[in-house]
Amino acid sequence: MEQGERRAVCLLSGGLDSATSLAYARREGFACYALSFDYGQRHRVELEAAARLAKALGARRHLVVPVDLTVFGGSALTADIAVPKADRVDDLAQNIPITYVPARNTIFLSLSLAWAEVLGAADIFLGVNAIDYSGYPDCRPEYIEAFEKMANLATRAGVERRTQLKIHTPLIQLNKAGIVRLALELGVDVKLTRSCYDPDPQGRACGHCDSCLLRRKGFAEAGVEDPIEYAA
Amino acid sequence: MEQGERRAVCLLSGGLDSATSLAYARREGFACYALSFDYGQRHRVELEAAARLAKALGARRHLVVPVDLTVFGGSALTADIAVPKADRVDDLAQNIPITYVPARNTIFLSLSLAWAEVLGAADIFLGVNAIDYSGYPDCRPEYIEAFEKMANLATRAGVERRTQLKIHTPLIQLNKAGIVRLALELGVDVKLTRSCYDPDPQGRACGHCDSCLLRRKGFAEAGVEDPIEYAA
Repeated sequence: MEQGERRAVCLLSGGLDSATSLAYARREGFACYALSFDYGQRHRVELEAAARLAKALGARRHLVVPVDLTVFGGSALTADIAVPKADRVDDLAQNIPITYVPARNTIFLSLSLAWAEVLGAADIFLGVNAIDYSGYPDCRPEYIEAFEKMANLATRAGVERRTQLKIHTPLIQLNKAGIVRLALELGVDVKLTRSCYDPDPQGRACGHCDSCLLRRKGFAEAGVEDPIEYAA
Repeated sequence: MEQGERRAVCLLSGGLDSATSLAYARREGFACYALSFDYGQRHRVELEAAARLAKALGARRHLVVPVDLTVFGGSALTADIAVPKADRVDDLAQNIPITYVPARNTIFLSLSLAWAEVLGAADIFLGVNAIDYSGYPDCRPEYIEAFEKMANLATRAGVERRTQLKIHTPLIQLNKAGIVRLALELGVDVKLTRSCYDPDPQGRACGHCDSCLLRRKGFAEAGVEDPIEYAA
């Protein structure tokens, strides 16, 4: 490790939020280690987006870890269950939707914790957001806080009290329009990001899943044209 | 799910401790879903042991999830680093040893949380032990407590306050001799268990890694002959 270098593990899905979170970590001066997961998601096109974004945003490394979450099932993103579609955000379910993948952020954060420990990194960046989000339990501030506390008891560094691990969630209090504005301010090439849960075979966004609807609403409210292609 | 059935996810490595923990869960009346991980461990023989134990102990299902922890490295169990050997337990390192796999229990518990959520199980059994153990940070009671708290904020069930998830650690306050006695009392066929971190090509235990030394000390103190085969 170079003298004075601060390393961070940055979770990178390939979507707008995680790309913005990575760009934020870079601006804060971190040497960024981008981490993506091949978990059997139907929207695998996001992994190609993640690779392009890691490069474009100057990540030191990009690692894609295979962890097959389809073995458990239970989500529209990993099992043969239709992704819900609507025309407006307000038409989507108000409860935790079927696109919720059981314990996904906990699994992803746990794996990032392993890499952080090996890298000697005390910082993890996660692009979760608790305002314009899909109602997933593992995006809420109280969850992140509890994870951080657990993580500091779980690891060698925590036990030896060398460092305190910090989970950074720079977007957590922003609405989607705020994220779009921050992305542009940080120089994220938003054309490279992929948010759709159910892209068509050409990789075009469906335009009607909750992730597409939230994204479109964000760009509209920010008064910025969304440069990606939508199938409908 | 059958009427009144209580399901539990039981982490099963194939070793003595996790087998005893699973047998304990069965005695408590749980329908047990045994979960093992193919994480690139050099002692893969434990996965065959896990399959035999799951069957022998009456688990409802046994799932082996591949999650490649060798991509991170940093441990003698998953990287090309020698497993330390000694003749007596006291000769082993007093600090966290090189066989510690970064964040392993956190990753395994997170994956068990996903399965628990899909199964509608509110109980997870883990055979950790904080007395005769290898000094891993993620085996301590305060860690388990913090994980449980986080898990209850992470999941659909926790948020909807339907159930409180509980992490059971029936062995945590037992020494190794106590675990041997409990295993025999619960009818565990200890001959099926595999503890060694560095078995020979025939699958025989090395007899000198920390896991072997702790096991042998436990059987000796319990006054019971260990029926498995040792290479030395």
